[in-house]
Amino acid sequence: MYANYSQPAYSQHTPSSGSPYHNHGSRHGRPQQSPQPGFGYQAGPPPPPGADSQLWQYFNAVDTDHSGAITVTELQAALVNGNWTRFDLDTVKMLMGIFDVDRSGTISYNEFAGLWKYISDWQNVFRHFDRDRSGSIEGRELAEALRNFGYSLSPHLLSLVERKYASEPSTAYGPPPGISFDRFVRACVVVKSLTEAFQRVDTDRDGWVQMNYDQFMSIVLSAP
Amino acid sequence: MYANYSQPAYSQHTPSSGSPYHNHGSRHGRPQQSPQPGFGYQAGPPPPPGADSQLWQYFNAVDTDHSGAITVTELQAALVNGNWTRFDLDTVKMLMGIFDVDRSGTISYNEFAGLWKYISDWQNVFRHFDRDRSGSIEGRELAEALRNFGYSLSPHLLSLVERKYASEPSTAYGPPPGISFDRFVRACVVVKSLTEAFQRVDTDRDGWVQMNYDQFMSIVLSAP
Ligand SMILES: [Ca+2]
Ligand SMILES: [Ca+2]
Ligand SMILES: [Ca+2]
Ligand SMILES: [Ca+2]
Repeated sequence: MYANYSQPAYSQHTPSSGSPYHNHGSRHGRPQQSPQPGFGYQAGPPPPPGADSQLWQYFNAVDTDHSGAITVTELQAALVNGNWTRFDLDTVKMLMGIFDVDRSGTISYNEFAGLWKYISDWQNVFRHFDRDRSGSIEGRELAEALRNFGYSLSPHLLSLVERKYASEPSTAYGPPPGISFDRFVRACVVVKSLTEAFQRVDTDRDGWVQMNYDQFMSIVLSAP
Repeated sequence: MYANYSQPAYSQHTPSSGSPYHNHGSRHGRPQQSPQPGFGYQAGPPPPPGADSQLWQYFNAVDTDHSGAITVTELQAALVNGNWTRFDLDTVKMLMGIFDVDRSGTISYNEFAGLWKYISDWQNVFRHFDRDRSGSIEGRELAEALRNFGYSLSPHLLSLVERKYASEPSTAYGPPPGISFDRFVRACVVVKSLTEAFQRVDTDRDGWVQMNYDQFMSIVLSAP
């Protein structure tokens, strides 16, 4: 049974000073360029009145061509997991769906404030539940995270989530591989989205719903 | 209403002589190396008795270190869309889930035969429904493809599929972006998987099901 519909947002931790954005450059031994937060400020345009100077600096580091708006390509280039893999397109689309409020197809400075906070908060969540500091979320860590968010999934469902969002295919040997940062965020948002949609149909809250094919498909296809 | 549960496999077309595998090398102006099918044969080990020589050549082109098994990394490097973008991790995991029959985590020569045919067949499907030769599947093309496979989705559901599998986020201006090859395959397999799962629950075939939270989540999380 589902029990509790709390938000996955989890804010018991002190905000991290670390940045969720990284530059691929250093990995390949190339010189560090402006996308690295903390580097590109002097080169960028001056902040708009009232802008947080640190956030403006981060915005300009991601907006590499200084057009004043972050494109999908710029966002994909800036967002990487701890192991330097890129975020999945589906995660980037999910983030654009939440934070590109005016549906311009790009992220403005104002929209960026929300995106930055969201990623930072999720980074804290991820670090908190990555108990063994492996850089990925494994079975028990996933179970604990989802339980903390109020989702009491059966062992069978937990194992399905673990396999679906693992960063590699499963093999016959050993447990499923771990879940990277961006896929962990997507997994949690999907569980939340599906659970809430189920709850809206389950008006008498007995854990059972009646639905037709259109409703069923619509719920599933609307999740990230 | 869902009507018809035919397989998405679609074989009215003559098999293509083209290869679904490409080498990133040529795109960046680097010299063509062995991953390009048709190049690396002489360098590879001799084919096992009874092996199709063309297929063995393709296998060795993808198995770049000639270990005798294709790893996930080798597969991801070999599989690209028409616009040179890589297949999503979720598509690669889906392919491994279907063709890594012994769950070794790698694709053997025998497993490769099935994978090769699957990709080639889907390439023909994709080329057939990409009516305007844009290299991607747009709204009407998607509707026609799914209708041909026997799925009569409502305009609302079609638009959800189109947005979910589009290769870029949607904007307020114009129709959703098109769907690349690998995401088109995944979209079709997901629609098939969800529709068949719904049908198994809908035993009296009236288009309505009763299900509990566990069943619902299990169906959704089991789809690619
Ligand atoms: Ca915007
Ligand atoms: Ca861990
Ligand atoms: Ca295998
Ligand atoms: Ca097209």
